[in-house]
Amino acid sequence: MNYKKINAEIIAELQLICGAKHVYQDADVLAHYAHDYTEDLKFIPEVVVKPQTANQISDIMILANKYNIPVTPRAAGTGLSGGALPVFGGIILSCELLNKIIEIDTKNLQATVEPGVINQVLRNEVEALGLFYPPDPASRGSCMMGGNLAECAGGPKAVKYGVTKDYILNLEVVLPTGEIIWTGANVLKNSTGYNITQLMIGSEGTLGVITKIVVKLIPLPKFDLLLLVPFASPEKACEAVNAVFRAGIVPSAMEFMERDAITFTLKYVDAKFPITDDDKAHLIIEVDGNDMDVLMKDCEKISEIMYEHQCLNVLFAETAQQKADLWKLRRSTGEAIKSHSIYKEEDTVVPRAHLPQLLSGVKAIGKKYGFNSVCYGHAGDGNLHVNIIKQELTDKDWNEKVPEGIKEIFNLCVSLGGTISGEHGIGYVQKNYLPIAFNSTQLNLQKGIKKLFDPNLILNPGKIFI
Amino acid sequence: MNYKKINAEIIAELQLICGAKHVYQDADVLAHYAHDYTEDLKFIPEVVVKPQTANQISDIMILANKYNIPVTPRAAGTGLSGGALPVFGGIILSCELLNKIIEIDTKNLQATVEPGVINQVLRNEVEALGLFYPPDPASRGSCMMGGNLAECAGGPKAVKYGVTKDYILNLEVVLPTGEIIWTGANVLKNSTGYNITQLMIGSEGTLGVITKIVVKLIPLPKFDLLLLVPFASPEKACEAVNAVFRAGIVPSAMEFMERDAITFTLKYVDAKFPITDDDKAHLIIEVDGNDMDVLMKDCEKISEIMYEHQCLNVLFAETAQQKADLWKLRRSTGEAIKSHSIYKEEDTVVPRAHLPQLLSGVKAIGKKYGFNSVCYGHAGDGNLHVNIIKQELTDKDWNEKVPEGIKEIFNLCVSLGGTISGEHGIGYVQKNYLPIAFNSTQLNLQKGIKKLFDPNLILNPGKIFI
Repeated sequence: MNYKKINAEIIAELQLICGAKHVYQDADVLAHYAHDYTEDLKFIPEVVVKPQTANQISDIMILANKYNIPVTPRAAGTGLSGGALPVFGGIILSCELLNKIIEIDTKNLQATVEPGVINQVLRNEVEALGLFYPPDPASRGSCMMGGNLAECAGGPKAVKYGVTKDYILNLEVVLPTGEIIWTGANVLKNSTGYNITQLMIGSEGTLGVITKIVVKLIPLPKFDLLLLVPFASPEKACEAVNAVFRAGIVPSAMEFMERDAITFTLKYVDAKFPITDDDKAHLIIEVDGNDMDVLMKDCEKISEIMYEHQCLNVLFAETAQQKADLWKLRRSTGEAIKSHSIYKEEDTVVPRAHLPQLLSGVKAIGKKYGFNSVCYGHAGDGNLHVNIIKQELTDKDWNEKVPEGIKEIFNLCVSLGGTISGEHGIGYVQKNYLPIAFNSTQLNLQKGIKKLFDPNLILNPGKIFI
Repeated sequence: MNYKKINAEIIAELQLICGAKHVYQDADVLAHYAHDYTEDLKFIPEVVVKPQTANQISDIMILANKYNIPVTPRAAGTGLSGGALPVFGGIILSCELLNKIIEIDTKNLQATVEPGVINQVLRNEVEALGLFYPPDPASRGSCMMGGNLAECAGGPKAVKYGVTKDYILNLEVVLPTGEIIWTGANVLKNSTGYNITQLMIGSEGTLGVITKIVVKLIPLPKFDLLLLVPFASPEKACEAVNAVFRAGIVPSAMEFMERDAITFTLKYVDAKFPITDDDKAHLIIEVDGNDMDVLMKDCEKISEIMYEHQCLNVLFAETAQQKADLWKLRRSTGEAIKSHSIYKEEDTVVPRAHLPQLLSGVKAIGKKYGFNSVCYGHAGDGNLHVNIIKQELTDKDWNEKVPEGIKEIFNLCVSLGGTISGEHGIGYVQKNYLPIAFNSTQLNLQKGIKKLFDPNLILNPGKIFI
């Protein structure tokens, strides 16, 4: 792509739009915005701007079109597919100052927030009112709503409550060409025109800059119970997952962790965890609801199913501290593995019952190509995070052999009825694998939509397929 | 629009594609396919074809592009916005022979069906396996899955379980240009490219012909309880709706019926219904789940809330027959009103708590423009069906004054944060009102998508905005 470089004139115009103090060219600031949480990738932007209104963003987009400058929107930068990396330089458009919870409408069980609101901040605010915003990515303490929407984030609760897209009613969006629109209405059902709201969600900041988000809230469940279930066989653990749903129980979390995922994480976080030499995999199972007797009965039934699948034990988290420890461990796994080794994270997803085949397939492919992987994730959704770790691999093998192995893993996903990203997105790092999921007709249709929204291809270029 | 007329040569080509016996030009067949359930509208198609495969549909689309012939896809023809009306003549493409349940995957809780499968047929098949497909439009006994997807159908269960879009994982679609694609993957979460699946749902057959549908199933709840609650004030009934959700209870149905809706329906169906002179509105409230004690507690709490909102009584449906009678009555309301008078049905939707304002607004607007309306619908979703009845109105008033009143009703919806269709779609009859919901930027974006998918504008023209 042949974009124009930022010059003094453009900087002056950006300063006019956002105010001088919200336009940054300091080396340390540029360095900070050069990476997100994806591997060890780094692309230095030419300028970072922090607008405070949709109108300012509109003006930035109009300016960027005029000069042909790439604009990379960014929320918290906690993404795992490189969606917020400014791969062609240009402008980083940070939405961190758009961080207001505009309204929590307790009558209609809705909230209107800006994209820079941190997921956990929103959940705390609504929980204090007895309400619940379920999507809870591992990074919920730092990730922002704008990024959650960009990637259609999931998290442990998705298995019962659905992902980000299931909670978004309406969006204010600045289109790449600068117009500001609302995509829908603040209603629970809507058959009025094409579903532009859902088209925006998961489009990874390539179709518009989201500036207001109307989310659906639900009543907060009163109780939850948490189980930890070790297995000698990871495949048996995966099989047990499916049996729970077949018994008519929908847990509020159904997480899988390989032994290595736990071992790595215990080195990294300060959390207590009962583990024996025989434990090769764990399930973390949560049920929630408003009636403790029902939850206890569900847990009894789940225990039965676990023992039928040769689990080694069923441990209850007895105290709030034990629950917190367990979740801290699960939520820190990604970071822990990253701190341990250079790694690539693949966000595989298949129909739930095919998880055992996916897991054994991943291990066999690793053997063939000579790499180790640490697997964990949202087993109830068939969503397995495969962390391929570099360890002693040479740079040549890492850069040449490993991508061949990843291709084989993604081909396996597709052959099992799945696809190549469940909740992290394609972004920059999975771009080359997209033809495994889509043929040219499918890709051309999507590229056509991109071109319709963004004729000059200036909004988040270098992502998904452009 | 300037389309070519069907001639003998084109008929011969259609016969070659579908087999001669699946191509109809008989006057009685054409007359049958000239209308759907929308008002008393009638548009005679030039030919009706009943393909049996996606490949045949692909060939039909290629032929239609070659000759510039409009193609109107049709499922059961039970739509209420005229989506299946062949307003420019041409080809009716009926999917009624694509009526197979291809697979019910009890391991993954998914089913793959063709678009001509009747909603109730699918629900019966999966219920026999302990599974549940929640979307349940009033016409579920006759409407087909293809049409349900086209309009993003809802129904009473939507309040707890969501609408059609919330149960669709993946679609096989014949594009207007003839290519056959899958839109996604058979997975519960998917961040791989733009969400073409959701773009197709609710697009009213204008972006492609759906030929296979992968739906998500959930465990079938074991029990349900049904309450009938009369009120002296319709507005108080609407206020009570919201209070239930605020108390942390999510009913599996929360329906509202005005007195007139019940009176009309009792004349039409043979169902018992306890009614007194004081009853001016009713709520029908259902709760479902796996634990009868919890449901009983929920019903006690709901009763309390109802009495706090000055209900006249709380009646339990004691037997299966009473439940069936009550649902029969509710599900027949639309037909009953239609049988009573020429009418226009408006599918208004607002944030739930604004329902009392919507209802009193509709009545005031009716008074101003001199028409009566019968209101009923899915109160828990803020989705009120406003049936405007012709009765003694002159044709002139019906054709000139009533549309002005409808405009005012839709403006009220939008001013309350709502929109102009919750579950019936825009189709043919609401087309002129669409600018109330969308400005020109929003409309042009949607028209651009239409043009991208269907460059010659031959698939279901005359609908939504084209």
